[in-house]
Amino acid sequence: MSLILHELVGDQGRCFSPFCWRSAMALAHKGLEWESRRTSFAGIAAIGGGQRMVPVLDHDGTLVGDSWAIAEHLEARFPERPSLFGGPAGRAYAVFMQNWTATQLHAPIFRMIAADLYERIDPVDRDYFRQSREQRLGRPLAEVQAERDAMLPAFRAGLEPMRMTLKSQPFLGGAQPTYSDYLPFGALQWARIMSPYRLLADDDPLHAWFGRCLELHGSFARNVPAYW
Amino acid sequence: MSLILHELVGDQGRCFSPFCWRSAMALAHKGLEWESRRTSFAGIAAIGGGQRMVPVLDHDGTLVGDSWAIAEHLEARFPERPSLFGGPAGRAYAVFMQNWTATQLHAPIFRMIAADLYERIDPVDRDYFRQSREQRLGRPLAEVQAERDAMLPAFRAGLEPMRMTLKSQPFLGGAQPTYSDYLPFGALQWARIMSPYRLLADDDPLHAWFGRCLELHGSFARNVPAYW
Repeated sequence: MSLILHELVGDQGRCFSPFCWRSAMALAHKGLEWESRRTSFAGIAAIGGGQRMVPVLDHDGTLVGDSWAIAEHLEARFPERPSLFGGPAGRAYAVFMQNWTATQLHAPIFRMIAADLYERIDPVDRDYFRQSREQRLGRPLAEVQAERDAMLPAFRAGLEPMRMTLKSQPFLGGAQPTYSDYLPFGALQWARIMSPYRLLADDDPLHAWFGRCLELHGSFARNVPAYW
Repeated sequence: MSLILHELVGDQGRCFSPFCWRSAMALAHKGLEWESRRTSFAGIAAIGGGQRMVPVLDHDGTLVGDSWAIAEHLEARFPERPSLFGGPAGRAYAVFMQNWTATQLHAPIFRMIAADLYERIDPVDRDYFRQSREQRLGRPLAEVQAERDAMLPAFRAGLEPMRMTLKSQPFLGGAQPTYSDYLPFGALQWARIMSPYRLLADDDPLHAWFGRCLELHGSFARNVPAYW
């Protein structure tokens, strides 16, 4: 069996995409071995199969694009291995958590590290990145990022439901991590790899949870170049 | 077997507590029959057993206080009936959803209907309610409620993760409702019973989901005096 995960890479080999981290954690959760194959934004088309985004999982020659589809693929194909979702209600949880992560983590984090991302992506991608992201934001990346100190308190406050939950259980998935953990984890790992800006206070219970996630599956997510 | 649910009642027999609605929906989900016994805030102490809040479930003489404890009690005692949580990951979902509901629904809804609540609670509770709630808010109930039109857009926007989730599945629990649905349902049912103020736009997908919840279990939650 061959499993290849096509992932986004920045300068200095930084594997930074939050969506790719979801898939890497899912593969590790299933106890699978895989080869990481790295691409710039510019190189995605060369993966083939009409893929236009990463992650893409190549499973014995079958290409599965989109992190959610990859999670469902792994859950369906490896049912005898630890469950990613924990059944239909747990799958529904992951759907909700994916949407919560999009609004409460991805959107504000992107604004807070926009210029840091630009500096650390593959140089070949910089013009594309600046143009597409500034069009989305309607303003220069640096100007948006310059407001991050003012954004930080609301960002941290917005994570309160997660913080409250982790008071009564070690993982969002309960006693053990599930894909519902890997969704916000991917967002924070993205920031940790691409920006020195500290999104979480040291004494925040979310920081302790993030540390537990970094230690999962042989600490492979901890052992990458990162700022915090 | 005897199941008695002690619930909070307002004027004109309105059973309005969002926490009591969670428990009522949980009992109905399990297909159980129960007797609803109603109390004002002032009457809670008369339930006995040192109980100071409702809901309280009296199961063959054993008192279980707190809506979460009631849900766990029902799940543990009636495992052969439809699961409330859907396994450990689904239970973890409910923990998260309870915290999300507290911050995204209960807190803003309370402010938007504070004076409406005062008008419709049992007259015997009014002084207690005004005093305790104005102390918490630091301002008169009517003054806080008067800002509701300005609060409404942010309230509706804050429900976006739930709205996105219901685009791909009929219930928060997935194909079928779970306790994760009953948590935000209880909050909206509270508002529906106690205030004419329309929290959800008619064309909001959340309105359609709320309608589906009202129809569950023989539509018993729909068939109570309410404003919308």
